[in-house]
Amino acid sequence: MKITKDQIFDFNDKNKSSYENDFLNKKLQSQGKNMDEIIQKIIDFQVAIPSWALGAGGTRFGRFSFGGEPSSLEQKLEDIGLIHALTKTAGAVSLHIPWDIPEDIQAIKDIALDNGILFDAMNSNTFQDQPNAKESYKYGSLNSINQASREYAVEHNIEVVKIGEKLGSKSLTVWLADGASFPGQINFQKALYNTEDSLKTIYGNMPEDWKLFIEYKPYEPNFYSTTIQDWGTSFMLANACGDRAYTLVDLGHHLPNTNIEQIVATLMMKGKLGGFHFNDSKYGDDDLTVGAIKPYNLFLIFNELVYGMEQNKHNPYPAWMIDASHNIKDPLEDLIQSLEAILIAYAQALIVDRKALEIAQLENDTVTCQEILQDAYRTDVRGLLKAARVQSGAAIDPLKAYRSFNVRKELINERGTKVVATGL
Amino acid sequence: MKITKDQIFDFNDKNKSSYENDFLNKKLQSQGKNMDEIIQKIIDFQVAIPSWALGAGGTRFGRFSFGGEPSSLEQKLEDIGLIHALTKTAGAVSLHIPWDIPEDIQAIKDIALDNGILFDAMNSNTFQDQPNAKESYKYGSLNSINQASREYAVEHNIEVVKIGEKLGSKSLTVWLADGASFPGQINFQKALYNTEDSLKTIYGNMPEDWKLFIEYKPYEPNFYSTTIQDWGTSFMLANACGDRAYTLVDLGHHLPNTNIEQIVATLMMKGKLGGFHFNDSKYGDDDLTVGAIKPYNLFLIFNELVYGMEQNKHNPYPAWMIDASHNIKDPLEDLIQSLEAILIAYAQALIVDRKALEIAQLENDTVTCQEILQDAYRTDVRGLLKAARVQSGAAIDPLKAYRSFNVRKELINERGTKVVATGL
Amino acid sequence: MKITKDQIFDFNDKNKSSYENDFLNKKLQSQGKNMDEIIQKIIDFQVAIPSWALGAGGTRFGRFSFGGEPSSLEQKLEDIGLIHALTKTAGAVSLHIPWDIPEDIQAIKDIALDNGILFDAMNSNTFQDQPNAKESYKYGSLNSINQASREYAVEHNIEVVKIGEKLGSKSLTVWLADGASFPGQINFQKALYNTEDSLKTIYGNMPEDWKLFIEYKPYEPNFYSTTIQDWGTSFMLANACGDRAYTLVDLGHHLPNTNIEQIVATLMMKGKLGGFHFNDSKYGDDDLTVGAIKPYNLFLIFNELVYGMEQNKHNPYPAWMIDASHNIKDPLEDLIQSLEAILIAYAQALIVDRKALEIAQLENDTVTCQEILQDAYRTDVRGLLKAARVQSGAAIDPLKAYRSFNVRKELINERGTKVVATGL
Amino acid sequence: MKITKDQIFDFNDKNKSSYENDFLNKKLQSQGKNMDEIIQKIIDFQVAIPSWALGAGGTRFGRFSFGGEPSSLEQKLEDIGLIHALTKTAGAVSLHIPWDIPEDIQAIKDIALDNGILFDAMNSNTFQDQPNAKESYKYGSLNSINQASREYAVEHNIEVVKIGEKLGSKSLTVWLADGASFPGQINFQKALYNTEDSLKTIYGNMPEDWKLFIEYKPYEPNFYSTTIQDWGTSFMLANACGDRAYTLVDLGHHLPNTNIEQIVATLMMKGKLGGFHFNDSKYGDDDLTVGAIKPYNLFLIFNELVYGMEQNKHNPYPAWMIDASHNIKDPLEDLIQSLEAILIAYAQALIVDRKALEIAQLENDTVTCQEILQDAYRTDVRGLLKAARVQSGAAIDPLKAYRSFNVRKELINERGTKVVATGL
Repeated sequence: MKITKDQIFDFNDKNKSSYENDFLNKKLQSQGKNMDEIIQKIIDFQVAIPSWALGAGGTRFGRFSFGGEPSSLEQKLEDIGLIHALTKTAGAVSLHIPWDIPEDIQAIKDIALDNGILFDAMNSNTFQDQPNAKESYKYGSLNSINQASREYAVEHNIEVVKIGEKLGSKSLTVWLADGASFPGQINFQKALYNTEDSLKTIYGNMPEDWKLFIEYKPYEPNFYSTTIQDWGTSFMLANACGDRAYTLVDLGHHLPNTNIEQIVATLMMKGKLGGFHFNDSKYGDDDLTVGAIKPYNLFLIFNELVYGMEQNKHNPYPAWMIDASHNIKDPLEDLIQSLEAILIAYAQALIVDRKALEIAQLENDTVTCQEILQDAYRTDVRGLLKAARVQSGAAIDPLKAYRSFNVRKELINERGTKVVATGL
Repeated sequence: MKITKDQIFDFNDKNKSSYENDFLNKKLQSQGKNMDEIIQKIIDFQVAIPSWALGAGGTRFGRFSFGGEPSSLEQKLEDIGLIHALTKTAGAVSLHIPWDIPEDIQAIKDIALDNGILFDAMNSNTFQDQPNAKESYKYGSLNSINQASREYAVEHNIEVVKIGEKLGSKSLTVWLADGASFPGQINFQKALYNTEDSLKTIYGNMPEDWKLFIEYKPYEPNFYSTTIQDWGTSFMLANACGDRAYTLVDLGHHLPNTNIEQIVATLMMKGKLGGFHFNDSKYGDDDLTVGAIKPYNLFLIFNELVYGMEQNKHNPYPAWMIDASHNIKDPLEDLIQSLEAILIAYAQALIVDRKALEIAQLENDTVTCQEILQDAYRTDVRGLLKAARVQSGAAIDPLKAYRSFNVRKELINERGTKVVATGL
Repeated sequence: MKITKDQIFDFNDKNKSSYENDFLNKKLQSQGKNMDEIIQKIIDFQVAIPSWALGAGGTRFGRFSFGGEPSSLEQKLEDIGLIHALTKTAGAVSLHIPWDIPEDIQAIKDIALDNGILFDAMNSNTFQDQPNAKESYKYGSLNSINQASREYAVEHNIEVVKIGEKLGSKSLTVWLADGASFPGQINFQKALYNTEDSLKTIYGNMPEDWKLFIEYKPYEPNFYSTTIQDWGTSFMLANACGDRAYTLVDLGHHLPNTNIEQIVATLMMKGKLGGFHFNDSKYGDDDLTVGAIKPYNLFLIFNELVYGMEQNKHNPYPAWMIDASHNIKDPLEDLIQSLEAILIAYAQALIVDRKALEIAQLENDTVTCQEILQDAYRTDVRGLLKAARVQSGAAIDPLKAYRSFNVRKELINERGTKVVATGL
Repeated sequence: MKITKDQIFDFNDKNKSSYENDFLNKKLQSQGKNMDEIIQKIIDFQVAIPSWALGAGGTRFGRFSFGGEPSSLEQKLEDIGLIHALTKTAGAVSLHIPWDIPEDIQAIKDIALDNGILFDAMNSNTFQDQPNAKESYKYGSLNSINQASREYAVEHNIEVVKIGEKLGSKSLTVWLADGASFPGQINFQKALYNTEDSLKTIYGNMPEDWKLFIEYKPYEPNFYSTTIQDWGTSFMLANACGDRAYTLVDLGHHLPNTNIEQIVATLMMKGKLGGFHFNDSKYGDDDLTVGAIKPYNLFLIFNELVYGMEQNKHNPYPAWMIDASHNIKDPLEDLIQSLEAILIAYAQALIVDRKALEIAQLENDTVTCQEILQDAYRTDVRGLLKAARVQSGAAIDPLKAYRSFNVRKELINERGTKVVATGL
């Protein structure tokens, strides 16, 4: 299925009365801000969709299937193409190996090009044993006490880089499940040593224009310890690897109440924030729709990201990705809702009156500091998003358009109801 | 110090261009809502200010003093009068005994009347030993293994009711610090039995038109166990006392990640939500400005409160109070910010399209359910608040007015910089 | 495979020097305690093994298979028989329908009888859709807004009771995944109303000598709200159902830092603790080996259980069950370790000097209260367990015996390496 | 008051039958361990007592006084002398400036010498404003946006070092309350930059044989952000300062569920664990008696500390201190209980069969790994502590001795009931 420009144009024409920005424009002008520049920044913001997020997700208690899931990499790209056509914000894909090994590289590249999709960071998988695997990751991969498992995992990562090179990707994201479910199970120091050693080998085998993103996570699927448990460990490992190794922050990978925006600020200050994975959660790594639970926190994080992108020029432009699971909702609808929440938080961060904030901070005027952030956050910026979409050729209301175009019904017609996408 | 109607009128005249509601009005109309009715509900919403919130608060690591603190109950009422003059939302006070024992009842009542302030729930204090106290609460009060401490605490509560009666209050809020800091310290069953017994005695000694509000809290100042640790315990005790005993929910009194809005819904369904204390927090009972950390959660709670006030007519209209501490900010500014956040969340809950939500829930259309709540939440409702204020005679921007009237400076001139208000 | 009495006898003979109780005996005597009575209580303590715990568990990130898993209900009973032969503590099974629908009732009963295994509480499953299910539980079961789903779930529970009746079970455990992953998804009040209504129907359809156990859990697999989120909700529902409805406490089903021992004490005081599920966790419902993470907390809970069993005669003897998952370890070894941890905590609770504790509590001598609990906990009670085992005919060191008898190897020989047991 | 050697000798003589180590000795021998060496290590282990821990602590809800509190530095040293006489484990004091500014240096040194007490790390205080302070720390100290506050705080730390030099201390512990209670209040990057800059200045002003210990804490007294929020930030700052700057870990300064033992292992591996503060907690920084809530966790931490002290020779021997608060208990009794819990955990860690553990880890035999740790932990090591005490001249049962010598009564006689010690 394809959504045409004409469909979008017609849709926008029918819904054009759904916003207005005059009052906001005046306010922004009074702060010396140019609304058009802000709208352009919203247009430019692109978020990668991971290939595993297009099918129904599950929990350990089971999985409820969803019709019309993509059964091939081609169909996954097609799905992202649909989202991108509707939003013009999803112009990248993040592939996962071995779920997405392309058979015909050129064909895959053509589909991506046709849909306006770039190949963002590649993802390796050393947390599951594949059928006929020579070594097992049951007790660890890059951190393993068994040299053979370690080497097998390193080789896999190098293989992932090679596939990525052919597709035009420029970075590798390493997320490790490595750790322990019971005290005593592993030697912390050896596990960390082995992880560093393995990562260095992978880093040394990447092309010179590639970046390495090192994720961290405090627990799950191991429930006592994760070897890269926090940003401090990831940061230490990235420093050990080299200049092109970075920490990657995933919103859900933190202990309760962690101040994530402060971690973001610290990493950008040190030039080590490589990427950011969006989702939302109330309890743990719940992988819910972005902005569904704690939207103010998302705004505070974007507030630091925007500041860092302006002030910390030594930090590379971060890789953005949605890393959510879709147990209940249509995955494409969920992703559209996530993109909306991301852009809202970004737009709110863009309209923060930073000059006034700096002055209030200098004066320790805490009340005014809070007012400035809340003023931006309480502003309804959806008109800015709509203006950006009209300009970029996206649907003015992507979710409504998705439904009015009967996308899911079409996909079920094309693909059937019993397909299961590769992924979790 | 007094703020006059003329001052407010002049201020509003100068700031009248700061909002517009036309676009929102059209949207509300399309949902069959009447904006004027919503504005009237915002005007009618009144929140009690606790007498202990008008001075600088502290932490166990110390306290930074603040100039112009009120040194008497009269001055506390004067402070609330200032907030109420600016906001027209703070038309009630919640007194704390023994910090606020009135010497001249009629004089106090006159000041309150003059400032448009009602006497909301009375608060007893059995968590501190007063100088010359005959019995100690060090090891508990209403739950104590010592009959003498228990009786002393019961008598104190009865005394608080008597003072409240004279002032025109109609309810007693009991918050207990009772519990244990170490395993084994108390017998859980005996402590609960004693608490129930003590509360029944207090309940039996209240006038027949009074209500009893029973707070709960999982920890602090005891760090192993609190005898009334959760809503389930409070609810059980309220049922044991009788029809006019209710559970009181304080936002900060929950374990990490608790779904508070669901507790609110359950209590209202059972007709047992007596009151609600507003504040905000990131870690524990941090007592920060309302809406400063988790505004979406506040909205979700108001969403249940509004639903319950409409649907659960057997539940009494809840008592609202701000229960925050002011370690950094000017207490009056903090309270004004809290009132703003409360009204915003309330207004957002009022504009939720409940009919559409009910349909989406019936169809298990989770995506649309989320859209409906988010649509209300993402709306900038500050124009509604401003319209309400213009109508009610409050300042259109209370915080700006507070500063432009130099309130704190005036208070310091009147009272000095070294006064310390009674309270925590 | 079967373990014979002779094998056990030989093993015990070779390992008889591995403990001594003389010093402990003297200490217990000085407190007026009879060591033989304590040993008898340890012998009498029996814990049900759930049928789903005998195969390898998994997380949402995958599953690592384990050789020799049971592929039928018969083999599951055989596995429990092995554990029971080694420990004499696992004399019951808790079945799960539909994973364990017996084809030949009498044959199953014979195997159980032969292995000394009773049929403890039956477990229903309304959190997964079975192939060819007429209704879906994707959006809820007993709480569902859809009458058809609700009725389907009620019927399933009644069917489970019927199967249980034939086997000789006397209770039904209901654990519900029902809830919501997103704000707005369900109407809290309607969901609770429907749950109560469904449970009452199930309760009304149970034989008069059956008990209903209602579990609670704050989150997972739903990540925003669980309809029966806490003990308070479960307790309220149990009261609504009737005298034979009880709350069931699962260790892992609590928010961070919850004081579970206090919940146990409250429920026993009210005669409403129906059962208890053992496991351990560091972060959430991690389902780790009992006692692997927080053994002192387990002791404190047993301290309340022992007190309640002595003092609260109106509370029925609770149903005990291990509810853990085995992602890394041999399930049988994991269960043996769990049983060991349970008996250790139980034995420690049995040797608490309760008379001295009561006196210290009366005197508010917190230091001594703590000393008394710690004295019991710091005592090495493994000698008591060994004495109990020698007396009951269990292996003096069950785990060592399991390995020396090559049980897993035998099971793999009999059943192969690629079987997957039904369950999570 | 002084406790004499004769008193101790008499006490021990009367209580000598309270332990036996024969069975344990055999077991240790079978693992190739020498019990006498273990006992010697227990004797050698010394923990600093902070000067502020000798009086009653409080919470923000108040403070219950305690008789016989020390009113001077001399009396504080006397109190520590009493604890040390009873335990022979408390041979050091950690002073806090400005609460403990010595008037007569030599006199203080003499008292310390007389009581066998060394001067461990000095503690500065930039979280409170002292009367007549020239600058305020209300909005921060080393992190402050105000240069004057920053410089004032730096100077204070340098002053603390100078006092410490005179007394013979060799290290400075910096704990900062610096942070923010509200989003926007501070600029994270500037605050971190200023903190690093300030710490470097302090470091540069220390004598060359001094160490700098940098504490971290996620929250409290600021409730939104702490500038040094976690070990990663502290580690980064220590690296920026230089070789003699280290991270200091305080047990209570972590988010819920943090794997602290892994942090300890990482820091020792990197040679950067400078010190460790003992206490216990269930919810936050509760500052309860060591081992009162999570003793297994304490053991797991000691397991890493013992491993690190053996393997990581580049890491300096850590500074140990008890950092607890005493709201309910007699402070001296609480400290004696804490020392007991520390030595128990240490002894258990010393008897871990590390060779067997290494083999089990190599074989990924998770079950055996767990058994090895649990075997050590489940062992009653109190006999080892008693043997150590008999040998070192401490009381065989320090708490019992404390009470039988009527220490508190004596102190009240000497000092009165209304003294309040300086501190929190």
